[in-house]
Amino acid sequence: MGKVNPSTLSGFMELLPKDQIQFNKIEQTLKEVYELYGFYPLDTPILEKTEILLAKAGGETEKQIYRFNKGETDITMRFDLTVPLAKYVAKNYNDINFPFKRYQIGKVYRGERAQRGRFREFYQADIDIIGDNELNILNDAEIISMMYEVFNKLGLTDFTIKINNRKILSGFFAILNLEEKAVDIMQVIDKISKISESELIKELKKLEINDEACNNILKFIKIKGNNEEIIQSLKFFSGKNETFDQGISELELVYENVSNFNVPTECCQIDISIARGLDYYTGTVYETIFNKNPEIGSICSGGRYDNLAEYYTDKKLPGVGMSIGLTRLFYILNEKEYINNGYNAPADILIIPMTSDLSHAINISSVLRNNGIRTQIYFEDKKFKNKVGFANKVNIKYVAFLGEDEILEKVVTIKDMDSGEQLKLQLDDVVSLIKSNMAEINKGTIINI
Amino acid sequence: MGKVNPSTLSGFMELLPKDQIQFNKIEQTLKEVYELYGFYPLDTPILEKTEILLAKAGGETEKQIYRFNKGETDITMRFDLTVPLAKYVAKNYNDINFPFKRYQIGKVYRGERAQRGRFREFYQADIDIIGDNELNILNDAEIISMMYEVFNKLGLTDFTIKINNRKILSGFFAILNLEEKAVDIMQVIDKISKISESELIKELKKLEINDEACNNILKFIKIKGNNEEIIQSLKFFSGKNETFDQGISELELVYENVSNFNVPTECCQIDISIARGLDYYTGTVYETIFNKNPEIGSICSGGRYDNLAEYYTDKKLPGVGMSIGLTRLFYILNEKEYINNGYNAPADILIIPMTSDLSHAINISSVLRNNGIRTQIYFEDKKFKNKVGFANKVNIKYVAFLGEDEILEKVVTIKDMDSGEQLKLQLDDVVSLIKSNMAEINKGTIINI
Repeated sequence: MGKVNPSTLSGFMELLPKDQIQFNKIEQTLKEVYELYGFYPLDTPILEKTEILLAKAGGETEKQIYRFNKGETDITMRFDLTVPLAKYVAKNYNDINFPFKRYQIGKVYRGERAQRGRFREFYQADIDIIGDNELNILNDAEIISMMYEVFNKLGLTDFTIKINNRKILSGFFAILNLEEKAVDIMQVIDKISKISESELIKELKKLEINDEACNNILKFIKIKGNNEEIIQSLKFFSGKNETFDQGISELELVYENVSNFNVPTECCQIDISIARGLDYYTGTVYETIFNKNPEIGSICSGGRYDNLAEYYTDKKLPGVGMSIGLTRLFYILNEKEYINNGYNAPADILIIPMTSDLSHAINISSVLRNNGIRTQIYFEDKKFKNKVGFANKVNIKYVAFLGEDEILEKVVTIKDMDSGEQLKLQLDDVVSLIKSNMAEINKGTIINI
Repeated sequence: MGKVNPSTLSGFMELLPKDQIQFNKIEQTLKEVYELYGFYPLDTPILEKTEILLAKAGGETEKQIYRFNKGETDITMRFDLTVPLAKYVAKNYNDINFPFKRYQIGKVYRGERAQRGRFREFYQADIDIIGDNELNILNDAEIISMMYEVFNKLGLTDFTIKINNRKILSGFFAILNLEEKAVDIMQVIDKISKISESELIKELKKLEINDEACNNILKFIKIKGNNEEIIQSLKFFSGKNETFDQGISELELVYENVSNFNVPTECCQIDISIARGLDYYTGTVYETIFNKNPEIGSICSGGRYDNLAEYYTDKKLPGVGMSIGLTRLFYILNEKEYINNGYNAPADILIIPMTSDLSHAINISSVLRNNGIRTQIYFEDKKFKNKVGFANKVNIKYVAFLGEDEILEKVVTIKDMDSGEQLKLQLDDVVSLIKSNMAEINKGTIINI
C-alpha cells in the first residue's frame, strides 16, 4: 500500500511528549494564578460567523485570516480572543455579573507567512476585567500584579513590566495642537524599539509634523528616571489639557497601588514611549520585556479600553486586560534553553513486575495512585534491561521491582535512577519516600532564567 | 452605528461562566486520573493536511468534514483525535518510547445536521496505549480501570462498562462459515440497542444469511449471565476456530485483571452483543452506559486495534484506547440536572473594602492567595448592598468587610453567605476557617447521580 508522508502543516507547533509536559506546566501555572484572583475560565468556539469576527473591518476579507464557507455559512477561525469575548459579553449581558473577570487560554489562527518562531496556530492566554458602564482604575493595577505573579511562579525573574497611559500621550499631542493626528503618531511611536531615531523622525514627518513638534515629541517620549522622577517631569505639563491631567492621575494611582500588591518597583516601570499600535486602547497600556533578551520584544501586552463590544451592543463596556502569546513564549524559552528539564517525566515511578501473576503489581499501583503518585506498570514482555531502560529514557526517577521474594516478604525493591541507590522498603515507606522527594523536586520552577 | 447581532454558530457549545467552571472541573478530573496512570499529555493541531486526515478514505471529500483551501494547501479540521495520533506516532516514531501512553483532550469538528444535543464542535477526551510491534493484553484491562476511576472520581456511580472481544464474534462467524461477512454482520449487531429484533433479522437477511445462521447469531449474542457464566457458555464453542479461542482467552485475561484493579464486578460486564461499528477494532471492545439512562447510548467507547498508523508507516503499531465525548456528556448531565451546583463560584472569598485607602485590602488578598484561597477584591464604587449582592449572585461563600475599625483592630469581619453568620477574626483564623470549610465542600463530587 502507498503511504502518505506523516507531516504537520508548516507554522503549526506540535511538541514531542517531553516538551508537551513542560508546555502544560506553564499553562497550568497560568490557570492557577488566574483562578486565585477569582477569574472565571472561559471557552468560546474556534469558529465564528465571519460577520462577527470582521464586524470592525466591515466584513472585508483580510489576508491573514482563515475563512471559508460551509453550506450557506461564511465562517472564520478566530484570530484573537478579544473579539469573541466582546461577542460573548454582548450576547450574555443579562446573565453576566459585572465586573466580569475571565481568563481564556486557547488557540487562535493567523495565516501569516511561515518563518522560524512565527506560528499560524498559537495559544493566547488572555485575562480581562469588564465593567458595566464603568470600571475602577485599580483593576489596571490588579492586572499588573497578576502578571508579576505569573512570571514569578514560572521562575521568570528578570523581567520588566512597562506601563504608560495613552491619555498622557494624546493629551500631550493635543497640547502640541496635534490632537487629530494622535492615533497615527502613537502608531509611529509604537515602533520605537524596532527602528532608529532618524527613521522615527522620518515617519513623523510623513504625518506632516513640523520640526519643532517632532523634537518635542521625541524629548517627551524619552523622559527617563525612576517612576517618581518621571511623574514629576510629566507634571511640568499639568494644567494645560484635561485628558493629559487625567492620564497622569490614573498612571499615578496604578503605579502606587501596584506596590501594595507587593510588585517590586524594579519590575514595574513607567515608560512614556509605550504606545501600543492598536487604536482601541484608551488608557493604561502595558508591555513586558525580558531584561536579558529585549530583542524578543514584548512577551505580554495589553491595556485599558473604553468600549469592548461597540459593534454588537449599545451598552458601554469598559475593560482592561493583558495577553500572553504562549506558543511563541514557549518556543523562545525552549530555544534559549531556559526550561528546567527536571520536570518532563510522565510518571514518578515505574513498576516492573518479575512474576507472571501481576495482581500484586496492580494492587501496589492502586495504593501509590491513591496517594497521588503518578505510577506506570511495565506490562510488556521484554528483556530486563529494556524495562529499566524505558524508565531511563522517559526520565522516571524511581523503579520498583516486584519479584517472588518481595511478594513473600511484603516489601518493594525500589531503585533511585539518579543515584543508583537500591532499597527494600515497606509499601508505606515507598509512599513517604517518593512523596517527600517529588515535593522536593517540584519546589523548583519550570523556567530558570 | 449599525450593530451586528452577537450570535454563536449553531451546533457550537458556548457555556455561561458558572457552567464553564463545572465543565472544567470534569475536564480537570479526567486529566488528574490520566496523569496518575503516567500518561503523557498530547496536543496536536486542529488543522491538518487533507491528505493526512483522509488517507484512509483515499482523499475523497466527505460531507461531514470542514475542509477548505488556504493558498495552495488543502486543509481539513480534525474530526477525531485518533487519526492525528496515528500521524503523530508515525512521524515521531524515532523519538517516542513504547509503549506510548498518551491522553488528549481537544476539540474536533463534524458538520453534522444541527439538532438538540448534537454538536459540530465538541471535545473528545481520548486515552490510548500504543505498542511497537506488540502490546500486552493487560493494557486492555488498565484502560478499563482508568475509566472506572474517572467515573468514580466524577461521582458517576451507577454505570456499567460492557466489554467484548471482536475475535469471539469473528471467530464464531467463521464457525458458521460466514467469515467473509464478519465485518458487515458486526455493523448490524452494533445497532442492537437501537433497533428491534425483527429489524435486526431483516438487516442480517439483507446480507444473504440464511434462517438457521440468523438464529444462531441471535442466540449467540444474547448469551446472558454473570461474567463467569458467559465465559462458560462461550467455551462450549471452543476448539473449533483459533481466532475464537484466542478471543476467549483474551477476554478472560482482561476480565480477571480488571478485578485486580479494584473495579467491582458489577461495573464491568461481558456483553457478547457489543460489536462497535468501526472496522478497525480487532480485539477487546468497550462501551459504557448509565444504568439509569441507557437511552443515551454509550458515553465512553473504544477498543483494541492491530495497526494504528498503517496509512503512514510500515511499522506495526498495535494499540488500545477509549474516548469520551465530553461536550455531549456535559450537555446530558446538565440537562438531567446531575451536576452538583455547589461548585460554581469563581472565588472562595470576596473582599469588600470600606475605606478609600485600599492598601490593607490588597495586602490581605495577597496573604489569602498565598494560602491557596481564591480571592476577589470588589474595587467598584457601588452601594453596599450591590457589593454584597455581587457575592450572592456569583455564589461566593465568604465576604470580608474591611472598615476603619477592622484595620485599627487588625481583624477582618467575615460573613458566611450561606448561614448569614458574621464574625470578627484575626487574618490567620480567616485562613484556617476558609481552608477547612472549602476542603469540606470540595469533598463532594462534581456529579451526583
